[in-house]
Amino acid sequence: MISTIKRPVLLVNEALARQHIQRMVAKTQAAGLELVPHFKTHQSRQIGRWFAEAGIKHINVSSVAMAQYFAEDGWQQITIAFPFNIRETKEVADLAARVALSLLVTDPQHIKVLADQVEVFTRVYIEIDTGGKRSGVAADDYHLISELIAAIKQSQHRFAGFYSHFGHTYQAHDRQQIQDIFKRSAHILFDLQQRFAYASPQLAAGDTPGASAVDDFGALNSLHPGNFVFYDLMQVAIGSCSLNDIAVALACPVVGKNADRQEIILYGGAVHLSKEQILWPELNKTVYGLPATLTSNGWSAPWPGCSLKAISQEHGVLQVTQQQFDNIRIGDVIAILPVHSCLTADAMAGYRTLAGERLDHFKAAWPDIE
Amino acid sequence: MISTIKRPVLLVNEALARQHIQRMVAKTQAAGLELVPHFKTHQSRQIGRWFAEAGIKHINVSSVAMAQYFAEDGWQQITIAFPFNIRETKEVADLAARVALSLLVTDPQHIKVLADQVEVFTRVYIEIDTGGKRSGVAADDYHLISELIAAIKQSQHRFAGFYSHFGHTYQAHDRQQIQDIFKRSAHILFDLQQRFAYASPQLAAGDTPGASAVDDFGALNSLHPGNFVFYDLMQVAIGSCSLNDIAVALACPVVGKNADRQEIILYGGAVHLSKEQILWPELNKTVYGLPATLTSNGWSAPWPGCSLKAISQEHGVLQVTQQQFDNIRIGDVIAILPVHSCLTADAMAGYRTLAGERLDHFKAAWPDIE
Repeated sequence: MISTIKRPVLLVNEALARQHIQRMVAKTQAAGLELVPHFKTHQSRQIGRWFAEAGIKHINVSSVAMAQYFAEDGWQQITIAFPFNIRETKEVADLAARVALSLLVTDPQHIKVLADQVEVFTRVYIEIDTGGKRSGVAADDYHLISELIAAIKQSQHRFAGFYSHFGHTYQAHDRQQIQDIFKRSAHILFDLQQRFAYASPQLAAGDTPGASAVDDFGALNSLHPGNFVFYDLMQVAIGSCSLNDIAVALACPVVGKNADRQEIILYGGAVHLSKEQILWPELNKTVYGLPATLTSNGWSAPWPGCSLKAISQEHGVLQVTQQQFDNIRIGDVIAILPVHSCLTADAMAGYRTLAGERLDHFKAAWPDIE
Repeated sequence: MISTIKRPVLLVNEALARQHIQRMVAKTQAAGLELVPHFKTHQSRQIGRWFAEAGIKHINVSSVAMAQYFAEDGWQQITIAFPFNIRETKEVADLAARVALSLLVTDPQHIKVLADQVEVFTRVYIEIDTGGKRSGVAADDYHLISELIAAIKQSQHRFAGFYSHFGHTYQAHDRQQIQDIFKRSAHILFDLQQRFAYASPQLAAGDTPGASAVDDFGALNSLHPGNFVFYDLMQVAIGSCSLNDIAVALACPVVGKNADRQEIILYGGAVHLSKEQILWPELNKTVYGLPATLTSNGWSAPWPGCSLKAISQEHGVLQVTQQQFDNIRIGDVIAILPVHSCLTADAMAGYRTLAGERLDHFKAAWPDIE
């Protein structure tokens, strides 16, 4: 398979990704809550089917267009885990007529537009900011929450409950910190559930660090992680997984060597990996990826002491040891473990399995609807 | 036009981009060297034609696939300004049979493969590292340079000269620093030209900061900048251009407001802008873009004191003043000036002009050849 690689290719270890899916399904089943996996990470209809084969019926996506793409592939229950974009009201109304659709709102204006312009009912979550400081109603803004619940209930739509992305787990550095942040955030949602018990809110939340490191999900009704299907260096640094859990790697041809600096020049840059970087604890250096050896069944552990130290649009500069430098030849192909697999997958817009099968990605496979 | 925007859209100000093209053409003509614009920034056949209309005949690209894309649109002289990737030898040979092709080499292995497997001659530049520390032969490695020249001359290929990307101009903070770095780098190439005069090397170099801030290009025979067609915040910070030179902006719908933090939640994130960030001097803050008002003929100057402070996959978090906060409504569309227009263009993979015309981008328009 390596012999057919000409340009940067995103390899996915299907067996490992399926194992992650099955493990998360088993874990949430044991904990008695629903797994609603976020498909924004892989954005692939074929990988979506791996989830269907594991019993998943309800999925999360991050845009209306992505919902259309997966609805087209047969998914019937979809949550668009992004604040309702009133500029896509017509598209949302069309989707609501085809699938069981859940939406997120944070503002009375969202509900007004839904009430006025989306006839078929949707399930409406109020998005809550439990500390992630991205979007969502402040968890202590009881006045607004109560106003939003009332507005939803007065419309043809159904109040589903509270949704929160626990994005602040990404600030953790070990499993204990993840668990603490997750527990605090889940508790905030539980308090809201008690306070607004008259409306019977369901609690929906999720993030890969929490879903990976936590076993007791308390009162949550559904869990919505995405990244766990692939994992990546960021998740390793946070404490969500180990290096051998990473299920995607960018295969990059070697195009040059610089003996003075012990650097390898790769065909593989920001348009392939994304510009995401991380301070890698073991090296105490900012890296854009870690190199590994491609093998017949995937790739090796990352090479000790080596890192992708710089990237530009198409170039990668790999800092290696003298031993690695001497081993590498121009025309070799090196695996790069990505910092952030969601963004690498989006940049590459397509995959190849280790068996050589090509898998679609929404970005390349879906006609632009704007 | 704003009324038709539903999702993030990359707007290009065609008149301004054409003005940048014409200015650079006039400047290089006056200075007596050839402009070989780098098409990796726009990657668009239609924008390529704007250059053709300004008299450009010879272009730079950063990959073999991009060369195929532009060859298909009729370009006859193409330099692939990236180290020769021996895994694409067949594609390079096919291209060499169709267009006047120039390549970059840095290693004897590159030339061996070209000599053995690419029958139709190409023009071969030796890439020189003049301080950018990315790829290229060290400028003082006379032994290797001389070996490479000899190998090229013994083959059916033609030695073109020395090529260098002056990437270290990106470390500048004003025009004087750009000029100093450019001058030093050009001087290094000039020294090599003298030393290897027997081989009659041409000197090819370029970078947008240098091409913008320098007037006297010395002994250079051709200039290869790319970003100047659009510019961006990074170029403003370096000193290459001013804010009103930026010719692309991402139009982003407003999906939420957070009064406590005076933040606006945008539909527009890392998959649209790229994750490129910059320490913006005026704010002394890291930003992912600057907001501006869409107008009937483009966009306003950036709003003082406001910035895109955080992005995740699809969300942008805009920090604004109280006055802006009060003015903005859910469903509005805000222009975001990008940090790095090459990566934003690559992430968006398509444009719309202010007149509403859709322009292709290589990434979306070209069939994957791997």
